[in-house]
This record gives sequence, structure tokens and C-alpha cells, in this order.
Amino acid sequence: VPQDMPEAIQDRYSEKAAHCYGCGRLNERGHHLKTYWEGEETVTRFTPPSYSTAFPGLVYGGLIASLIDCHGCATAAGADERAAGGKKGEETVQRFVTAALHVNYLRPTPLGPELEIRGRVKETSGRKVVVEATVSANGTVTARGEVVTVRMPETMGSR
Amino acid sequence: VPQDMPEAIQDRYSEKAAHCYGCGRLNERGHHLKTYWEGEETVTRFTPPSYSTAFPGLVYGGLIASLIDCHGCATAAGADERAAGGKKGEETVQRFVTAALHVNYLRPTPLGPELEIRGRVKETSGRKVVVEATVSANGTVTARGEVVTVRMPETMGSR
Repeated sequence: VPQDMPEAIQDRYSEKAAHCYGCGRLNERGHHLKTYWEGEETVTRFTPPSYSTAFPGLVYGGLIASLIDCHGCATAAGADERAAGGKKGEETVQRFVTAALHVNYLRPTPLGPELEIRGRVKETSGRKVVVEATVSANGTVTARGEVVTVRMPETMGSR
Repeated sequence: VPQDMPEAIQDRYSEKAAHCYGCGRLNERGHHLKTYWEGEETVTRFTPPSYSTAFPGLVYGGLIASLIDCHGCATAAGADERAAGGKKGEETVQRFVTAALHVNYLRPTPLGPELEIRGRVKETSGRKVVVEATVSANGTVTARGEVVTVRMPETMGSR
């Protein structure tokens, strides 16, 4: 990775918290989703493998749910760090986990193009961060979701 | 398959509708989920692959969402057939697709044991069938979900 490449939020999950099939850098079989800040929004870009079909030519709903889920948790971790004043040296980010996931499938998602997941913090209160997200293909939103995340207990190796 | 084995609901999806990564018998890389009736409930049993981790030893949330999603669509297809008077010869079942998916993660789901997904029709109206489902491991419910499914247009090869 060149020095001037931006670092993804998931790149700073602690080792114990980096095994997620969706977005863990240490999961050898997983999707390795990477989430970045773009202003006040977060963005993840991912091209699903060819076998991720619902129907021929369309992405299956479970993957779309998974993209929104991992994107939501990363957005919560990033927002938590920003709220604390930004990155401090080599410190890892606080890991958040999903308490509830809601997805509305607005139209079929084509399988082939890169998908763009965009997120924004909707609400923060106590241990909870709520993230809303969209999934787009070719510039059209195909699904909308909301992820209710909670701060992971430190005893579970959250950072 | 022996003659006296019960047939899964997904075994009677039409060829065009049997490519889902979660539950399509024609998806070579997929999970091949199979849903059966048990009285008024439906049940799917599945042991996640070892790499389906959230954190070491726990199942990632995207897979849990995917299990509830496919289970919900199969339950809707099965309920639609029952409402029409049951299986008629070699006829395929009507395929339902997901409009909305809601999952509450109640506690961590252990990775290792077989998971049991149980569903029940909550509501039917017009083209819509709403299914509620639980995911259990070792007899303990770890997640609850609701799937709003809609009858797939025949033009999409739904049966």
C-alpha cells in the first residue's frame, strides 16, 4: 500500500476484531470490504463475485444485507473516532457490532457492476450508533438500510 | 434422494428461480439451504462453513440475515401452495422475493453447531406474505427476523 493511500476504517480494527467474513482483513476467504470517509459520508465499493446470484444477472439479497451490515459497523467505528478527536497515532478504532439490521429492497440489483454503499450517522446515544445506508449500481439506488450498532465490550477484544 | 425423503420447498422452484446463492439448487457455489414444513412451521437446518466468522467462534451477521431471507421466501412459497390446496403433480411453486428484511441480533451466534431457522406466516395480503423467523443454536434463539416477501412477476420466470 503506497504511503499516500487513504487507510480504510477496517484496517484499524484490532487483530481480534478483524476476522469478519464481510470486512475482516484477517479472514482469508472473506470479502475484505473497505470503508472510507468522503466528507460527512462513508463509502464502500465492492464488485460481487459472479456466483452471488439471486436470479441470473441479479445480486442475492443476503449479500446486500451483509454489505449494509459491515458498512454500518465501520461507519459507527469511524464516527466514534471522529467524535473523540480523530486518529491518535497507531491506536485502533473501537469496534461496534450489530444489534438490528433493516433493509428495504427497492429494485433488483444488477450483478456485474461495482456496487457503491454510502452511509451516514443518523443518531448517536450512549453505546449506540445508528447508521443509514444506500446501495447503488450504475448510479441508481437499489436498496436502503439502517443498522443499529452498539459499542462492543472491551472484554471481547474490541480494540 | 430416497423416494420417502420429504421434498424441500426449494426443490420445486422453477429452473429460472433456482440460482440463489443462499438456496438455489442450481448455484454450484451456494449454500443450498433447504426448507421443510413441520406442522404449521417451516424449518431450515444449516451448519455454517468455518470461515463464516464475525469474531473467532461466532457467526457473522450477514450470513444470519441471509438465512432468514431465504427461509422467509421459501416459507412464503410453501404457504402460497398450501393456500391453493397443496401440491398438484409436478407443478413448481410460485417464487416470492424479498421487499424488506428486518433482523434483531439478540446474542452472539456460536460458529460450529448446526443452526435451526424456524418460520411462520405472520400475515398474507394481496401479493404480499410476511414471515417471522428465529435462528437458534444449541436450542437457544440468537436472532429474530421478519421478511416481507412479494409474489414475483411471472414475466421474471417465477414458476
